[in-house]
Amino acid sequence: MARRSKTRRDSGGSRSGPLASPHVARRLPVFDVMDEQTIVRLEQQVDWLIEEVGIEFRDDPEAHRIWERAGAKMEGNRLRADAAWIRELCRQAPSEFTQVARNPARNVRIGGANQVFAPIYGAPFVRDLKGGRRYGDMESFEKLVKLAYLHPNLHHTGLVICEPCDVPVSHRHLDMVYTHMRWSDKPHLGAITEKSRAQDSVDMAEILHGREVMDQNCVIMGNVNTNSPLLVDKVVSEAIQVYCGRGQGIVLVPFILSGAMGPVSTAASVTQAMAEALVCCAFAQIVKPGAPFVLGNFLSSMSLKSGAPTFGMPEPVLSNYAIGQMARRVGLPLRCGGSLTASKIEDAQAAYESADSMQSTAVAGAHFVLHAAGWLEGGLCTGFEKLVMDADRLGAYQKLLGGLDASDEALARDAYAEVEPAGHFLGCGHTMRNYQTAFYEPALSDSENVESWEEAGEKDMRQRAYERWTAMLEGYEAPPIDEAVDEALRDYIARRKREIPEAWY
Amino acid sequence: MARRSKTRRDSGGSRSGPLASPHVARRLPVFDVMDEQTIVRLEQQVDWLIEEVGIEFRDDPEAHRIWERAGAKMEGNRLRADAAWIRELCRQAPSEFTQVARNPARNVRIGGANQVFAPIYGAPFVRDLKGGRRYGDMESFEKLVKLAYLHPNLHHTGLVICEPCDVPVSHRHLDMVYTHMRWSDKPHLGAITEKSRAQDSVDMAEILHGREVMDQNCVIMGNVNTNSPLLVDKVVSEAIQVYCGRGQGIVLVPFILSGAMGPVSTAASVTQAMAEALVCCAFAQIVKPGAPFVLGNFLSSMSLKSGAPTFGMPEPVLSNYAIGQMARRVGLPLRCGGSLTASKIEDAQAAYESADSMQSTAVAGAHFVLHAAGWLEGGLCTGFEKLVMDADRLGAYQKLLGGLDASDEALARDAYAEVEPAGHFLGCGHTMRNYQTAFYEPALSDSENVESWEEAGEKDMRQRAYERWTAMLEGYEAPPIDEAVDEALRDYIARRKREIPEAWY
Repeated sequence: MARRSKTRRDSGGSRSGPLASPHVARRLPVFDVMDEQTIVRLEQQVDWLIEEVGIEFRDDPEAHRIWERAGAKMEGNRLRADAAWIRELCRQAPSEFTQVARNPARNVRIGGANQVFAPIYGAPFVRDLKGGRRYGDMESFEKLVKLAYLHPNLHHTGLVICEPCDVPVSHRHLDMVYTHMRWSDKPHLGAITEKSRAQDSVDMAEILHGREVMDQNCVIMGNVNTNSPLLVDKVVSEAIQVYCGRGQGIVLVPFILSGAMGPVSTAASVTQAMAEALVCCAFAQIVKPGAPFVLGNFLSSMSLKSGAPTFGMPEPVLSNYAIGQMARRVGLPLRCGGSLTASKIEDAQAAYESADSMQSTAVAGAHFVLHAAGWLEGGLCTGFEKLVMDADRLGAYQKLLGGLDASDEALARDAYAEVEPAGHFLGCGHTMRNYQTAFYEPALSDSENVESWEEAGEKDMRQRAYERWTAMLEGYEAPPIDEAVDEALRDYIARRKREIPEAWY
Repeated sequence: MARRSKTRRDSGGSRSGPLASPHVARRLPVFDVMDEQTIVRLEQQVDWLIEEVGIEFRDDPEAHRIWERAGAKMEGNRLRADAAWIRELCRQAPSEFTQVARNPARNVRIGGANQVFAPIYGAPFVRDLKGGRRYGDMESFEKLVKLAYLHPNLHHTGLVICEPCDVPVSHRHLDMVYTHMRWSDKPHLGAITEKSRAQDSVDMAEILHGREVMDQNCVIMGNVNTNSPLLVDKVVSEAIQVYCGRGQGIVLVPFILSGAMGPVSTAASVTQAMAEALVCCAFAQIVKPGAPFVLGNFLSSMSLKSGAPTFGMPEPVLSNYAIGQMARRVGLPLRCGGSLTASKIEDAQAAYESADSMQSTAVAGAHFVLHAAGWLEGGLCTGFEKLVMDADRLGAYQKLLGGLDASDEALARDAYAEVEPAGHFLGCGHTMRNYQTAFYEPALSDSENVESWEEAGEKDMRQRAYERWTAMLEGYEAPPIDEAVDEALRDYIARRKREIPEAWY
């Protein structure tokens, strides 16, 4: 253990040591951006969408049967339901829950005053300072999972940290899930792209955690997007059946580019996202009352010049705050936002956009934040440097969410007995007692004077980030795992790979 | 006029055209980060500092006489005053006021729901992509003032946008003030470093605006720092006498590096800043009841490694929110924050730190934001690229502060009659009616795909910013000025330069 501690210190992992808790325990108050009248107007529109416009469930006859058995009436694929009933069903979902990790010290609490940060999900490309931009592969995937495991400011490793494009699509989910299970001991997600892949993820989680733990706990979740506007396809409804059917969690996220998959208006897009998510939550609660459900919202604006999605802009920033307020009213854990940007590289654009996006995500009270680190190019590319740069800032948000300490010690009255007007507090008793924990200590910000910075080679943040992630990987040691469990996982994967034909689509 | 409009469009100045209002008219609610009990604790500590610890006024016998005539008792240099009396005096200051510009369309409203963004103040160095880092000079100063004038997202041009180090210190204030008066028509500040320089600024403002306008309005303000902790030196007390004595405004800003000029605690530093600022506000109200006063706070954290100040960190971010809440309780306009960073260049560090600092500044409700654009190196350097990069993001904050539009048109119910599930909203009537104003359109963010970005030369934001500010300057046309007024200003400066010996300190 002593050796391991030292290794992680050397890799820079201990820089934010005091903050390395398994999740954020928020004390900062919430920020409500709507008055009562406005939020009621939006809630009325959510109900109107559920009751009058309706939502379609396509290509999954079982989903229709589930709704009908619960008493709903399908008109073809369209469900128009009583909104009060939908909201009543949603109240069966827990307002907060624990996702158990294989290392209990890594368990995360999602919902309420607890917030969890996880890395980018779904990028086909990767980029780093030396290797440039290229398709993601299993080697990059494994490195990125290890970095997410090592970083003290990431609480959860997500799943598709990049697409490992060198593994056949039909086998990919097995290798991805195993990588998270074996080379990290933080909580993670499972696959959702097809019903059998969701089932494989759940089955592997049962091998890892054991049936009894799984019966009593959420140990894995799937993250799914509705096909906005107003369509739930079978990928979503089947994933809900597989995960929630086993008492596991679903993160359900309408992805709305306002003006394309929703009206060109923040208020309308937010209500549409709420309507889609609430109907899916109700569906999940019919499948399994009490199943953990995270209400999602992923809203993007667009460029007038080209129609390209834009990120970190004031409309999605405002939507983070608005959806945070709406989620608190329905009492469901929320996923929204992230460290989002349209920039291709880790330049100032990437950082301005990511910071505006992520500060609002954190302050809005997002309980589960996918894409909290590593996102470039509108989500098409995972940046190695970007991952550690964003994660360094996550420590700052975690400190911010701790709120203002106004204890007697924080008020420091004794310091004024020691320090005269125009004097300095550097050596006074209060400073000596508190300086080591007073300030967030970033690993990647250079705050030295220009001469020191020039002498050290005029490195920009990107270069420092490259040095940091390479040092972190050098210091990596795998978390221990029960050998029998590891063998059982490997056997499962080998059998499934024999059963499933290789396919690249 | 037609030609001028065209020129400004070509320079990129119109990109954020719809936002180019003279100041922010906020509709976004405020964010209170303290509960009632906590804010009362902090207010009690403010009162304790005023009553029991006290604040010194040094080297200005007239300041002592002013306090004593008002009934206060000085113990040597120390003023310990009844806090209720200090707060009563502060209530004579306006909660919001207008600073009149020489172009009435540029008048800014400071306080209440109005927020004003101004550029960096006080940097001895400048940096741009081609010229590198160097001492500021009059050529750079003039270019930077022109850029601040041209940029639609800056409402005010401040004063010391960089130090023009090639002009003798004793004459510098004359040339700086004239540059703002002549090459911009936005509101600006005057000099404060010595009583006669403050007086020159006020006298020049009287020439520019005329005695009658000045008698009735705030047309110029001085920005001063207390000598924290708890010391008001004569630079401050004399500037208050000169500016407020003439009915003009003072922006008073304790600068506290927590752990050096205040305790190593956010809560304590915030209370100290409030105590210093309130006592100065009371002093200003004794000098001239009703004088415009902006309550300032400039709080910085520090690096544990070197003691260097750090910026954009969670402690000063939280202090922005906390001081915003405290300022609302005393009903005074607030200055805090800015786009602050310790980075030496316009890299990701600069942008992460500036965005976190500035988003919290804007949301906290800072009414007058100096350093809102151009700040590098902890304030030692003005970046030409940084100025336009930050200012581009200011447009995003201005949009955010507009709050959520929940009108019938924003709710877009008619769009759902046109668009089917899984359809798209691109061509529907609601989108056609609203797309042109729906989204903030940044000038410097590249949201195109990677192929387009590569074809365009893989420019990072810094390169695009260089191109933008050079194009803006090429399109610059001086705002018209009455020739007699200009001549009178030039005569005043020539006379004063003859009267004041050249001095370099």
